[in-house]
Amino acid sequence: GYAGGIQTVTIIPGDGIGPEISDAVIKIFDSAQVPIHWEERNVTAIKGPGGKWMIPPEAKESMDKSKIGLKGPLKTPIAAGHPSMNLLLRKTFDLYANVRPCVSIEGYKTPYTDVDLVTIRENTEGEYSGIEHVIVDGVVQSIKLITENASQRIAQFAFEYARNNQRSTVTAVHKANIMRMSDGLFLRKCRDVAENYKDIKFTEMYLDTVCLNMVQDPTSFDVLVMPNLYGDILSDLCAGLIGGLGVTPSGNIGANGVAIFESVHGTAPDIAGKDLANPTALLLSAVMMLRHMGLHDHAKKIEKACYDTIESETVRTKDLGGNAKCSEFTNEICRRVQDQD
Amino acid sequence: GYAGGIQTVTIIPGDGIGPEISDAVIKIFDSAQVPIHWEERNVTAIKGPGGKWMIPPEAKESMDKSKIGLKGPLKTPIAAGHPSMNLLLRKTFDLYANVRPCVSIEGYKTPYTDVDLVTIRENTEGEYSGIEHVIVDGVVQSIKLITENASQRIAQFAFEYARNNQRSTVTAVHKANIMRMSDGLFLRKCRDVAENYKDIKFTEMYLDTVCLNMVQDPTSFDVLVMPNLYGDILSDLCAGLIGGLGVTPSGNIGANGVAIFESVHGTAPDIAGKDLANPTALLLSAVMMLRHMGLHDHAKKIEKACYDTIESETVRTKDLGGNAKCSEFTNEICRRVQDQD
Ligand SMILES: CC(C)[C@H](C(=O)O)[C@@H](O)C(=O)O
Ligand SMILES: CC(C)[C@H](C(=O)O)[C@@H](O)C(=O)O
Repeated sequence: GYAGGIQTVTIIPGDGIGPEISDAVIKIFDSAQVPIHWEERNVTAIKGPGGKWMIPPEAKESMDKSKIGLKGPLKTPIAAGHPSMNLLLRKTFDLYANVRPCVSIEGYKTPYTDVDLVTIRENTEGEYSGIEHVIVDGVVQSIKLITENASQRIAQFAFEYARNNQRSTVTAVHKANIMRMSDGLFLRKCRDVAENYKDIKFTEMYLDTVCLNMVQDPTSFDVLVMPNLYGDILSDLCAGLIGGLGVTPSGNIGANGVAIFESVHGTAPDIAGKDLANPTALLLSAVMMLRHMGLHDHAKKIEKACYDTIESETVRTKDLGGNAKCSEFTNEICRRVQDQD
Repeated sequence: GYAGGIQTVTIIPGDGIGPEISDAVIKIFDSAQVPIHWEERNVTAIKGPGGKWMIPPEAKESMDKSKIGLKGPLKTPIAAGHPSMNLLLRKTFDLYANVRPCVSIEGYKTPYTDVDLVTIRENTEGEYSGIEHVIVDGVVQSIKLITENASQRIAQFAFEYARNNQRSTVTAVHKANIMRMSDGLFLRKCRDVAENYKDIKFTEMYLDTVCLNMVQDPTSFDVLVMPNLYGDILSDLCAGLIGGLGVTPSGNIGANGVAIFESVHGTAPDIAGKDLANPTALLLSAVMMLRHMGLHDHAKKIEKACYDTIESETVRTKDLGGNAKCSEFTNEICRRVQDQD
């Protein structure tokens, strides 16, 4: 909950359009007088002692203190052996839950309406273990690692999330018919945890069936919880249903309240610096962050201003079918924030 | 190609609605005077010497001779340790390629139009290796196995398929950014094979990006080739785009022309025996089979009769929004087959 006073948030603007959309968010937060002090850090990976990749100490220290980060897009490293910064951040701060609410945006047409679901992805293990071997020439194995602890922890997170967000159903997504031991363990832990949440309905479904049903009727889903790779896939699929990564927020949550909220779209180098970017995904991620910090009134106000701006159709960025510049779109949201006072 | 004369096809009617829809297909084939002799076999798994699961020898022998099978749905085994018959069949006959054309059906409304793509799934290894271990209490690993041979073979299949079916692009679907060695090997083989097919465009895309783009604009895809699990997921997703498993055909292809074509929907025990089932998926799978056997004229005629029946809307089964019984739907297709003479 929000204890009052000004809280520090580490902001990682990122690459490409990252700085522009970060500025947009900061401006909108200012207009809503959000009691946040921003500490800006960059997170280009550096090689630490022993050749291990790490994030720069200034970024690490800032996050260790603030516990809350907001992050724009980071460019994918090209050099072989260079780690994905997104993965390194999840690892460094043990951000074990990736949460993506996918909610249809009023007035922004896609083939679907009334989508309102949340994917909760285990963020630390599974197919992302990074353990791979050449067995003999031409034969390679990758190891998918599932642990009781991580499965228990993410299942617990999903049910807590459902309860705290007035959601009624948690669906475990798996392929335990094929990976009987690993997905079997994940599924068993979900079932165990479900026992403690009698107020929440629990269902289980094969990943392939979820994909099939999802594109036929996404409104039949509520909260979905799943291992790492399945979450990678499903969260993007679901983002596609509501308009893509440009309008979908995301949060990576760890223990003790540590969290990084981020837009998951790319750096869009082609339009970077041209005042053409759409800040919606980062802004809605920042709204998730406000709720996480207990700043519910600010969250509601900014979210409404953002949705109303999109719905009114007069001031939309190019990717949303309009002609507005990023700054015009941002100003319109600020205006609507202040209009609510 | 078709050499003339009557060819034998092994038909495995399957469980639930399987026998009804198999009868429907046989009837429609009769009306089109398809030169096929059906050899009916059942494939309930039995325990062979040494306790190994196998398909009954009569079914094995029939397939070994005919080389071509048509299969209805099989119920999922409930007993632990009992194998999936679908997997056992793929394994027994080394059916390494699963092919699913997903084409929008004129007159059958879904959120998408003009879908026309094919998923080609590696059917023998990957996450389906079945190799799993408990490392220590609460820690389980599943092994994903990727080999050069299987990757090469499926890539080659995909490009041959594209060339023989007037398709212009093959897209390799992967997560080589995460599973650098295993998916990396798969991807490398696709790139290698692409070198030999300069008439076909080759692209590569992350699985998550494919899912995202697929639900936003499926018309941007053509032939997709991918490892086992990704194919399981994507083929169902794509089926969903055109109306679900009730209207989507599937073929499992092995070396030397061996193949089993199958409907991939369930056994629908609730409507079994009530003359309410929709035979479309099995019929369109049988049409794929005809093309595989070189019987192109028969394939075209039956396919047209099936699509025209659905498009005309007057005789549709319940799942397609109509009131017709399976037999009425079947008769209507037969009538339209004969009308073409
Ligand atoms: C950038 C990439 C490593 C990452 C992933 O695969 O997890 C991305 O797709 C995501 O979902 O955050
Ligand atoms: C029945 C099941 C084992 C199978 C799979 O996972 O491959 C099914 O989903 C399929 O696509 O044929």
